[in-house]
Amino acid sequence: MRRINIGILGLGTVGTGIAGMLEQNADVLGARIGTQLALKKAADLDIERDRGIKFAPGVLTTDPYEVINDPDIDIILEMIGGMDTARDLIISGIENGKHIVTANKALLAALGNEIAELATQKGVSLAFEASVGGCMPIIKTIRESLVGNNIHAVTGILNGTCNYILTEITSKGISFEKALDQARSEGYAEADPSLDVDGFDTAHKVAILSAIAFGMQIDYDNVYIEGISAITPMDIEFAAQCGYRIKLLAITKFDGNAAEVRVHPAMIPFTDLLSNVNGSMNAVTVTGDAVGDMILYGHGAGMMPTASAAIGDVADIARSILAGGDMRVPILSYRMEHIRKIPVKPMDEILTHYYFRFSALDQPGVLAKIAGILGEHDISIKSVHQTEHRVNGVVPVYMLTHRAREAQVKKALDKIAELDVIPERPVLIRIEAPEEEKAEEPV
Amino acid sequence: MRRINIGILGLGTVGTGIAGMLEQNADVLGARIGTQLALKKAADLDIERDRGIKFAPGVLTTDPYEVINDPDIDIILEMIGGMDTARDLIISGIENGKHIVTANKALLAALGNEIAELATQKGVSLAFEASVGGCMPIIKTIRESLVGNNIHAVTGILNGTCNYILTEITSKGISFEKALDQARSEGYAEADPSLDVDGFDTAHKVAILSAIAFGMQIDYDNVYIEGISAITPMDIEFAAQCGYRIKLLAITKFDGNAAEVRVHPAMIPFTDLLSNVNGSMNAVTVTGDAVGDMILYGHGAGMMPTASAAIGDVADIARSILAGGDMRVPILSYRMEHIRKIPVKPMDEILTHYYFRFSALDQPGVLAKIAGILGEHDISIKSVHQTEHRVNGVVPVYMLTHRAREAQVKKALDKIAELDVIPERPVLIRIEAPEEEKAEEPV
Repeated sequence: MRRINIGILGLGTVGTGIAGMLEQNADVLGARIGTQLALKKAADLDIERDRGIKFAPGVLTTDPYEVINDPDIDIILEMIGGMDTARDLIISGIENGKHIVTANKALLAALGNEIAELATQKGVSLAFEASVGGCMPIIKTIRESLVGNNIHAVTGILNGTCNYILTEITSKGISFEKALDQARSEGYAEADPSLDVDGFDTAHKVAILSAIAFGMQIDYDNVYIEGISAITPMDIEFAAQCGYRIKLLAITKFDGNAAEVRVHPAMIPFTDLLSNVNGSMNAVTVTGDAVGDMILYGHGAGMMPTASAAIGDVADIARSILAGGDMRVPILSYRMEHIRKIPVKPMDEILTHYYFRFSALDQPGVLAKIAGILGEHDISIKSVHQTEHRVNGVVPVYMLTHRAREAQVKKALDKIAELDVIPERPVLIRIEAPEEEKAEEPV
Repeated sequence: MRRINIGILGLGTVGTGIAGMLEQNADVLGARIGTQLALKKAADLDIERDRGIKFAPGVLTTDPYEVINDPDIDIILEMIGGMDTARDLIISGIENGKHIVTANKALLAALGNEIAELATQKGVSLAFEASVGGCMPIIKTIRESLVGNNIHAVTGILNGTCNYILTEITSKGISFEKALDQARSEGYAEADPSLDVDGFDTAHKVAILSAIAFGMQIDYDNVYIEGISAITPMDIEFAAQCGYRIKLLAITKFDGNAAEVRVHPAMIPFTDLLSNVNGSMNAVTVTGDAVGDMILYGHGAGMMPTASAAIGDVADIARSILAGGDMRVPILSYRMEHIRKIPVKPMDEILTHYYFRFSALDQPGVLAKIAGILGEHDISIKSVHQTEHRVNGVVPVYMLTHRAREAQVKKALDKIAELDVIPERPVLIRIEAPEEEKAEEPV
């Protein structure tokens, strides 16, 4: 049986993990695939550094085009990241008839439609399991296992840095800033953490998941994005009192006409398994008309979990090459001619449950004023909680609402913020509970 | 593009679900697969009953061989269950060059090696995602996504009936018998519940998972099996006091030389997500050298979740037929020439942590006698708990142990049972905690 030749672009953490796995787990790969996955070329600017891997002579190169233009190479793994260089290399690879495996969610979020179309035209694979959820096979599950389902929603914890930080705030009662510092020193956060903590990384991922779940074009520009930097230990404590934990959620839903695609901190009930996903772990719930809710859970990042996902893609492609025949599974889950531009609902039209926290002056009648304004905006209060965190005559009051419309909520909070008795901007956190009854009753 | 013709054997719950899904979700299937999956023939003894599906004229038949021998049919779904008839039909189908999709775990556990070998020789698929874990893609995940991993363990809650019963005992404090009655009236248990509650169904599934995870022959006869009928609300309460919940677990591990394959009630720590899998839901943890722990969670049974898994298999096969080329993925995950007879450790050699409950006469010195016997057998006690459930001078005492050997444990408990001060047979429940520290400290 013929050998499958692999090229790697970028020997950073994940690229090195892939090279190591091809070497160390060659036996098990051979026993399952039936041939050798041979690393023919690997390009990196730094080819001197010892990566603990025995590269055969001639494998390492500083020139990525030695990989792209090698006629023997079947599959190229793009593990450089970033936009322009990665795009140019992937496109050149596709033009040369190479199958592509990538973990580059930022590039796919921006240019995935165009690149998928080009790959389809050229009859090569573009595989990206490693771009979302680390080792979890969320792409394969949606594209293959759930092929017979109309998928209604995908809801996930898709950024390990944010989940680590929120877990630390929750378990230790420390501030966001302190938890971020800790994430940095533990190696969970970059020097510039904005991509993670401001929600952009999660937004890249949910844009990709929306496309393959619903047959829509990738539409990153219409993802609503809100990060976790405003989350306080106080809100986490109040959430817990009502049976909720706060997580940064990627949420995408489709009602047959329009999609909701949003990333923001959300309260989820203790009864939802996602609320028990802690530390840097990821998890995602897929809701389909036949399967109901199905959850995948695993390491969402890291050298070997991500390498595992990329090698899964490589094996898929290798098996198709060895079996002969054309590409089997459409790159974006739906065949190109069925992919539509599905409108994304403006955030104002979202209907959900809310948690509000008001810092109110401790005077009679404040609650009546707040309740009055909420009522004028058709926002129905489910419960009101006066707390004991009184500081300088200011007392936090929090409320949970029944389902309300985001536009009305914003208007009401703007009006409440103008009240003399409300010295600080009210806090809003959305509640993601499939049914109101799912949350435990406030204690 | 050519149509793919489907035949169904057996229009029971799952067979009917599959037929319904092919009809109702034809649009989404077409948009993803690119052709029609057409139900050409469906055989059942009762073809008069209204199943809410519009079968085309000539589709229904009472003769399964009309399906098996139809030259136009590409894929046959065996949804009859049971042993002899299902075996004969599957073998005839394979002989006729049909691809087979089945949910028949009992048959696979008994004859999976032989049937897989025959299918491989004939160059047809034998797909069985629906046989384990309902809608969860555990087979695909192991065979494809984790292809680059040495898999060390698979641990799962794989029987919805048992999990429902244990959840009811836990949440309501009722007896096993009462919970079983309730499961029957809710439709979660059969009139003869033995296949479920005595662990046989779970054992069929773990035999299949062991094979595809480790490259071993299916070896049902060497699965250790213990059911849930002896579990009491008292043991569940004591487990909770120590931070554990009791679940019926399928456990399979491989150390490179020998496998442990066992089904029994086990205590798992609250910190393990599996402990939060309630009601009839299923979940399974796969542990690989690259991915660490990965968990799948979903509906483990039921008409549509199981149909979804079977349709996923059908789509896989259809896509390969349409792409041209041979079968891509080995039926039992490893290529036939790499499948080995891996020895299964006798239960006596298992090392794990234990929970013991003794009904002791309330006399001085009892604890010393028990501890003495345990010590003689190299069983080290981690904690001892005297309880307040005193009845007629008998008081339950429970203990958690450090890692101990099953053979020694049995010998020690036999000896303790002989003591005059121990009027009842001691209770033993194994603790499945990856590391001792994972469990919360007893309160």
